[in-house]
Amino acid sequence: MTAPPDVAELILLKRDGGRLDDASIEWLVGAYSRDEVPDYQMAAFLMAVYFQGLDGGELRGLTAAMVDSGERLDLSGLGRPTVDKHSTGGVGDKVSLVLAPLLAAAGAAVPQLSGRGLGHTGGTLDKLESIKGFRSDLSNDEMAEVLRSVGCVICAAGAGLAPADRRLYRLRDVTATVESIPLIASSIMSKKIAEGTESLVLDVKVGSGAFMQHEDDARRLAETMVAIGAEHGVRTTALLTRMDTPLGRAVGNAVEVEESLATLGGEGPADLVAVTLALAKEMAALAGLEADLPALLRNGAARSRFDEMVRAQGGDPAAALPQAPLRRELPAPASGFVRRLDARAVGVAAWRLGAGRAKKEDPVSASAGVVCLAKPGEPVEEGQPVLEVRAEDEARFARALEALEGALEVGPEPPELPEVVIEAIRS
Amino acid sequence: MTAPPDVAELILLKRDGGRLDDASIEWLVGAYSRDEVPDYQMAAFLMAVYFQGLDGGELRGLTAAMVDSGERLDLSGLGRPTVDKHSTGGVGDKVSLVLAPLLAAAGAAVPQLSGRGLGHTGGTLDKLESIKGFRSDLSNDEMAEVLRSVGCVICAAGAGLAPADRRLYRLRDVTATVESIPLIASSIMSKKIAEGTESLVLDVKVGSGAFMQHEDDARRLAETMVAIGAEHGVRTTALLTRMDTPLGRAVGNAVEVEESLATLGGEGPADLVAVTLALAKEMAALAGLEADLPALLRNGAARSRFDEMVRAQGGDPAAALPQAPLRRELPAPASGFVRRLDARAVGVAAWRLGAGRAKKEDPVSASAGVVCLAKPGEPVEEGQPVLEVRAEDEARFARALEALEGALEVGPEPPELPEVVIEAIRS
Repeated sequence: MTAPPDVAELILLKRDGGRLDDASIEWLVGAYSRDEVPDYQMAAFLMAVYFQGLDGGELRGLTAAMVDSGERLDLSGLGRPTVDKHSTGGVGDKVSLVLAPLLAAAGAAVPQLSGRGLGHTGGTLDKLESIKGFRSDLSNDEMAEVLRSVGCVICAAGAGLAPADRRLYRLRDVTATVESIPLIASSIMSKKIAEGTESLVLDVKVGSGAFMQHEDDARRLAETMVAIGAEHGVRTTALLTRMDTPLGRAVGNAVEVEESLATLGGEGPADLVAVTLALAKEMAALAGLEADLPALLRNGAARSRFDEMVRAQGGDPAAALPQAPLRRELPAPASGFVRRLDARAVGVAAWRLGAGRAKKEDPVSASAGVVCLAKPGEPVEEGQPVLEVRAEDEARFARALEALEGALEVGPEPPELPEVVIEAIRS
Repeated sequence: MTAPPDVAELILLKRDGGRLDDASIEWLVGAYSRDEVPDYQMAAFLMAVYFQGLDGGELRGLTAAMVDSGERLDLSGLGRPTVDKHSTGGVGDKVSLVLAPLLAAAGAAVPQLSGRGLGHTGGTLDKLESIKGFRSDLSNDEMAEVLRSVGCVICAAGAGLAPADRRLYRLRDVTATVESIPLIASSIMSKKIAEGTESLVLDVKVGSGAFMQHEDDARRLAETMVAIGAEHGVRTTALLTRMDTPLGRAVGNAVEVEESLATLGGEGPADLVAVTLALAKEMAALAGLEADLPALLRNGAARSRFDEMVRAQGGDPAAALPQAPLRRELPAPASGFVRRLDARAVGVAAWRLGAGRAKKEDPVSASAGVVCLAKPGEPVEEGQPVLEVRAEDEARFARALEALEGALEVGPEPPELPEVVIEAIRS
């Protein structure tokens, strides 16, 4: 590239619905990450993208530029197929804690880079950090070593991976440009591509507790990410899954680890097991592995890998998990069947109880959360406890209970419950 | 206002098509001008406004905040009605040079704050500065003194007027957010309100040489500005006028001063005289003055005011105007009638000849420009000169002539020429 394109002209082009050529978009993102394009021009560009979108070529260029802004890990020397999973985030979504050791037991290497929670959806790392001693922040070398010795690792993405994405995300967060399908897709995919996995399964959640409320949007996001993966040589499959009610019964940090351990022992709640096995099957297929996945849960193989991983990351899998000192039960308002238990309301309640954070710097409570004693489809008697809220601090209850008002619906007839896995999108 | 609203939430609200309440928008613009809101958030907000617009209340708040960001002049002690005019910019638009002294001769005080040219439309100050010694940059006191003694002044807006608008405009210029009707309207009106005029006539131009290409857009802009004026106690009328062909015959700096002098002597080209008198009539009406305006042109009264104003601003009205050393004539391609002479093409040609600038810092040539020897409706013989291009530098011609390719159309029948004044919009 001889002369840099005029940034204002690129913004204008996007604003008016045009498309940037590959060189221009790669230049723009590269120059932004080198401080040659100021935040205010990038902010205007991002808002124009919010309204006008990006086409396939632009998405490829944007993702490539974000990958190229940092290091790209080389996981080729592990002697096992690498496969990772990413979820767009849901309430009670502890799938990664089960899936990574399960696939490791099946013969894959799972470099599960994860995040912390922000807002009403929890973060995988926050959950694991409720285990005594567990360390999420590993160096690249430490991560590779855990991956080699155990077959799976769950840790934070290093600062060296796609730093342009990190910077763009910070800008999007304060300029109301987060909710853009192409920007979300390229952000997720740039980190996964830089991480060096050969294949990837995406859990794109749709429903009240998910980022995407509508199936069409979720499908578009899924298709967009699958296409980006294919363009960058990462075999990618996406599952659309429902997130209208919490996944499993536990919502919080330590409570979700407990439920994950039960699931790793073959005793998980039906919806959590269904989503986990559906994703596991796709991961095994992409990795070219044949394995009896339910058996690996039942026979303790997956649980052993989990314990090994926790130990390799400094944690004590035998230590007791933190227990909340304060608990309250909410009674069923009537006898009948639970017809609805709103995922977002439960997520917000858990967040307000202390399980989540409003700002990146906030600490989280390991023991706070919500336990759903009854789930949609289950019969209840009037007055029977249906939700248990837990906190470390009495002051947390009032606003959490407010969030739960109207979240639970009981009726005389059992509801029709749709399958939790909606469809698979493959490249 | 107790706590500042979260800026990202205001951006989100506008992005999603909501409206900001008065307090929020005034806070946002005020905080931006106090450096409490960063450029990147304002840039995202401006792009959201580009897509979602602003309603009447938001516009009022935005304009008020920009006026309040600086000083507001008090012109009430002049003993004459104050009335100003603003044009959205056209090719060959030298109307201000005639209008200000004409209204002064009619008994008004005209505080004509003007700008310099940028791009293909010229600037009133650039034109006047081709007069030897003329000074456009006056202090507020100097401006008031010229206004008091002569009845009109044409000068640059001081830095103290609507500084928030100045800052927002600079940001819009580099973030592709200039072309927004509410942002244009509030920018223009904030300066005019701060300037302290009691009434204002707007010349909103529409056509190939204008900022607005479509009559609907121009009408919307005009209506928006008239409403803002009314809300702020400035009596405002707008005329929609055509800008498909240059106004008058001269396009440039000194050449436009020459044509203005002819018009001030009662010898102006028909279209220029028509627009000038239509605007003058509206200005006189708003100022409550009754005057025989054509007579003030014929009897030299307007010309005397012009000479007085030039002298009061340091210029010599008797000095010879700069003449371009290099001239070329373009011949008519056929015999017949000029059917079209494209305003934008002529404007771009004059700009490339040196009459305009691409960047604010560029100097302009006083003598460069285009003279239209034949205008739409006039008969021509094949080979007869129809355009004269003038420059100080031979190297200027090639790209200027390129701009003129296809700009002139000659046909066997005379065209139907629409009236140059389309309509008046009053509050």
